[in-house]
Amino acid sequence: MIKVVLLGGGNVAHHLHEALRLSKEVDLVQCFSRNIKSINVFQNFTPITKNLNELKEADVYIIAVSDDAISEVSEAIPFSGKFVVHTSGNKPLNVLSKKNKRGVFYPLQTFSKGKEMDYSKIPFCLETEDERDYNTLKIIAESISQKVFKIDSEQRKSLHLAAVFVNNFVNHLYKIGDDICQESGIPFEILQPLIEETSEKVKEMQPLEAQTGPARRNDVKTLDAHKAQMKSENQIKIYELLTDSIQETYGRKKL
Amino acid sequence: MIKVVLLGGGNVAHHLHEALRLSKEVDLVQCFSRNIKSINVFQNFTPITKNLNELKEADVYIIAVSDDAISEVSEAIPFSGKFVVHTSGNKPLNVLSKKNKRGVFYPLQTFSKGKEMDYSKIPFCLETEDERDYNTLKIIAESISQKVFKIDSEQRKSLHLAAVFVNNFVNHLYKIGDDICQESGIPFEILQPLIEETSEKVKEMQPLEAQTGPARRNDVKTLDAHKAQMKSENQIKIYELLTDSIQETYGRKKL
Repeated sequence: MIKVVLLGGGNVAHHLHEALRLSKEVDLVQCFSRNIKSINVFQNFTPITKNLNELKEADVYIIAVSDDAISEVSEAIPFSGKFVVHTSGNKPLNVLSKKNKRGVFYPLQTFSKGKEMDYSKIPFCLETEDERDYNTLKIIAESISQKVFKIDSEQRKSLHLAAVFVNNFVNHLYKIGDDICQESGIPFEILQPLIEETSEKVKEMQPLEAQTGPARRNDVKTLDAHKAQMKSENQIKIYELLTDSIQETYGRKKL
Repeated sequence: MIKVVLLGGGNVAHHLHEALRLSKEVDLVQCFSRNIKSINVFQNFTPITKNLNELKEADVYIIAVSDDAISEVSEAIPFSGKFVVHTSGNKPLNVLSKKNKRGVFYPLQTFSKGKEMDYSKIPFCLETEDERDYNTLKIIAESISQKVFKIDSEQRKSLHLAAVFVNNFVNHLYKIGDDICQESGIPFEILQPLIEETSEKVKEMQPLEAQTGPARRNDVKTLDAHKAQMKSENQIKIYELLTDSIQETYGRKKL
């Protein structure tokens, strides 16, 4: 069993606590948070502490704190030469203090509080400074998930950016769809099968091929009708920019 | 049983043929297409014709042709006083010829050729000029799907616009995510669980609440880092506009 200490009390720490304590390869020996209240609920399963000087011996220390606190926490750890990883998609490996061996253990998912998750489907993106440490992370990740990838800091930066487009921005488009429905007294629920189908489709084909709609067809009549229909300046701007972008992608020829 | 004649040979006609012939409330008496080849495969199940003068007697005539052809086909039908509907989300009821009783039978879904669909989850949006015809469409729709809504022409226009945001534009954001991955040698597959989770989330909460990410948090450092990272002018423009729109929605205060 690989001995793990988990540091952090937020969303990611809570989900990792759940996943790690259920892993058959992991002995979760301790959890740490400065704000001990945030991890009180772990007590039934795992010893907890709010004191870095009480950290137990482990094979890996997983720092699952907010991006801005990673550096500080990793500096404050009162030992050196051990294996310490962070869990951020947004930070390079080298934000961790040099005094320990370093790595990244990044679960690429949007974690919501309290929402149950199927960890086996979450992609884990792993990186280590020293190749010899890689296998430790790999064993842990593979005991949780079927999807484990070796991703370096440069790639992780790109991945995080791509995730903003396919998650944060996509959700904002859902929100605009919801606004349009609400204005017309239509339940948003009507759109949900379409939303699901759109997301399912790109499992089977590339998004480039999956594109449909008036911009793709260069259906100028519909495009004009839509623009005339919108009242919000903001909606119009987004409509125009994304339509232009689709038309640039496929050329403006009428299909 | 409600006697139905289906007109059209495209994607929607093919899917409706499948759904209608399996319906226990429908007697699909005939299919029509000018381009008879496009519906040759229906022959094993349903009589076909390419001649409008040979249209059989039915309770409903469903015109599932391209938006621009609806008017023409409905004019060319050689009878009057019967019940004729179209299937377009994009056209009002009154594009149909006045000589028949009119309605709309609109399945809100993105139909891909050859892809099997679970019709029971497709929302059907129904409208009739005469209230007395509504029940006929309702019986047919409810025999196919669990989700049947009464939606008038104005609402349908809004719904179609909303669908462009949550389907066409969302797919384009997937495409940009794919581009960013490809540039960095990352398999797009890594993003799929996140894409799925994002679409699942709005079944349980409103998109307004579900929003996460650097724009929502007003995390200026990450926003700047992302902008510096992108090479494509087009990506930058979309990133900035959607970030602005999210910040406007939630205010620019740091969370």
